[in-house]
Amino acid sequence: MKSCGVIVEYNPFHNGHRYHIQQARLKSGADVVIAVMSGNFLQRGEPALLDKWARAEMALAAGIDIVVELPVYSSVQAADYFAEGGIALLHALQCDSFCFGSENGKEKDFQQVAKWLIDEKEAFDQAFQMVKNSGSSYAAQVEALLKEVYPTLSLNLSEPNNALGLSYAKANLAYPKPMEMYTIKREKAGYHETTIQDLEFASATAIRKSLIKKESTVESVMPASSLELVNQEKFVSWENYWLLLRYQIMVSTVDDLQQIYQMNEGIEFRLKEKVKEAETFTEFIGLVKNKRYTWTRIQRLCIYILLQLKKTDVEASVEGLKAIRVLGFTEQGRSYLKAKKTKIELPIVTNLNAANKNFFDLDIRAGFIYQLGNPHILPQDYRRKPIYQIKS
Amino acid sequence: MKSCGVIVEYNPFHNGHRYHIQQARLKSGADVVIAVMSGNFLQRGEPALLDKWARAEMALAAGIDIVVELPVYSSVQAADYFAEGGIALLHALQCDSFCFGSENGKEKDFQQVAKWLIDEKEAFDQAFQMVKNSGSSYAAQVEALLKEVYPTLSLNLSEPNNALGLSYAKANLAYPKPMEMYTIKREKAGYHETTIQDLEFASATAIRKSLIKKESTVESVMPASSLELVNQEKFVSWENYWLLLRYQIMVSTVDDLQQIYQMNEGIEFRLKEKVKEAETFTEFIGLVKNKRYTWTRIQRLCIYILLQLKKTDVEASVEGLKAIRVLGFTEQGRSYLKAKKTKIELPIVTNLNAANKNFFDLDIRAGFIYQLGNPHILPQDYRRKPIYQIKS
Repeated sequence: MKSCGVIVEYNPFHNGHRYHIQQARLKSGADVVIAVMSGNFLQRGEPALLDKWARAEMALAAGIDIVVELPVYSSVQAADYFAEGGIALLHALQCDSFCFGSENGKEKDFQQVAKWLIDEKEAFDQAFQMVKNSGSSYAAQVEALLKEVYPTLSLNLSEPNNALGLSYAKANLAYPKPMEMYTIKREKAGYHETTIQDLEFASATAIRKSLIKKESTVESVMPASSLELVNQEKFVSWENYWLLLRYQIMVSTVDDLQQIYQMNEGIEFRLKEKVKEAETFTEFIGLVKNKRYTWTRIQRLCIYILLQLKKTDVEASVEGLKAIRVLGFTEQGRSYLKAKKTKIELPIVTNLNAANKNFFDLDIRAGFIYQLGNPHILPQDYRRKPIYQIKS
Repeated sequence: MKSCGVIVEYNPFHNGHRYHIQQARLKSGADVVIAVMSGNFLQRGEPALLDKWARAEMALAAGIDIVVELPVYSSVQAADYFAEGGIALLHALQCDSFCFGSENGKEKDFQQVAKWLIDEKEAFDQAFQMVKNSGSSYAAQVEALLKEVYPTLSLNLSEPNNALGLSYAKANLAYPKPMEMYTIKREKAGYHETTIQDLEFASATAIRKSLIKKESTVESVMPASSLELVNQEKFVSWENYWLLLRYQIMVSTVDDLQQIYQMNEGIEFRLKEKVKEAETFTEFIGLVKNKRYTWTRIQRLCIYILLQLKKTDVEASVEGLKAIRVLGFTEQGRSYLKAKKTKIELPIVTNLNAANKNFFDLDIRAGFIYQLGNPHILPQDYRRKPIYQIKS
């Protein structure tokens, strides 16, 4: 059986995601499509609108064969670590290929640049050291350096999906037997679009806004099977965790905060100072934000504080996967896991128990905290069985 | 000017407290009565129904001349440490005497037993080691040992105010120049009484219940000046902090919990286990409670967790007072502080500022957390001036 992997958040699942799955299947000729999906906390430092179970079910109903959970120490990370976590899971699952959406849409560009960045790592690092305090963004700096080597290159790294795609390509090439790589061009809805402007495609950001406002426009841009699984009562946003975050920052000493992952350069003093003034989460980030600390970077830091992810926790975790957490599968997906059983070296966990729970301690913690945000959210880990989707 | 001290919680102020002040003044012949009052978290491991400012104002309106704050590391403690903290402040304030209510009512009994416990500490400790695992309560064991030495003694230490009084007497006798000690017999309302059963006196427990239910019976058992200062909107109980406590226990590892003051004997495992099952604070304590851990002991532990009071914090703090925090005074009280200025060795702090805030870091933290329990509670420490009560 041939397999193709995708690395996703599905926050929530929409027509663009369905198109991505269809194209991945078509391009790769795969029998099964495997999604590595972030759990309850996402790449930009936010809680997911709906929990991982609702989002996994949406995925299985719309074409995915297996959903595995991207651990929280990888899911709330900037592009490189996020990509390494996702690619590691796909490799562990013996995927033949993977496919991602990008603004660029040409595999060759990603391959070429990724290879150059790996082969010439030392030269790149040296050159980067020289420009890194120039004031422009990381992406812009990498791009400027690339332009010197490949004057004709058209890979615009300020486009978020191009940047993420390059991270996937790099992470994949680091393996002795890299997977085949496919990318599909994102045609419509830009990543940052905030309202639904098309009859079939819209950004997840615009869709979340419409769902919260209960606008009927979402009906044209999400599969019917996904819409059925939307439960407004269970929605959460950062504001649902603001009291807990505020409390945690207030009760922590500066020394406590310094233990938290990514806490450096004295930002802990700024957090403690501003938390007294802010009434809402949005106001808080607005007060803390400055030239050095972007909105997203502060949001991620806030997730680490909320979940008390310490430097020691994360550094120990990113060293390597210990097990694979399956959230759900179709019949086809189950057959694949059976067929590959002897080749997949890591334990595949479908039900948590005393023997395997230590593999997922940070995710279990994240699940408990996520549940506190809204009384309608069900327990996230213990006593949950994987979703088994039978094709109708 | 002669002064007499009282050690109090005033949760809330009632006629019994007014009687206590009157008797203290009468017995001691003092010109000023000084109250050492717990801040926002109390001896039995509970948040105060109303904040320290409302309770200080009640005290000043009803006969107290100076209110100083008992720091949180002393206020949430079993009898001996609570008493040591209170007595230390009264000594620091140059009090000539102190006065407490007790079921026994005879100074001689407290003096005699306290002296014996200090003089014969070694013998007592040895004897106590032998009986301490007998299964009966600490108070019962101390009493049994005392009965052997003083067969005619009538100091019943299972009465809570007798036990506390003995702790005051011991703490006081440890000073080279002990204060004069007075006790007044508590006549009516038992400490554990839960409903108002008298036309003038009732227990604070019964009064809190009536205030929450808005019963008119409270009008006869509280001074009018105190009733005027009751603001129902600002009431808090443990349930207001249950989400925060639950979150903190969930997000803490067993190692984190072991840093908390008084966390020992493996209770941290039990807390982490039961927190998943409980829906309310009361249910939680009911699940955790067992023969070894009484309700009050667990409640105190929960305050330490809520405020993240670590072993290192508390052990460093109880070593000695660094400053005196004044919450309010009358004209008479202010004159006393002026007159004693040169004799009082510790800094007297009326307004927090950059130079003195480090003396009160744990109390400031406690104030921030207390405020999170109810949006109507005003800031507790910064930008607060002491109450200045001008006699009408």
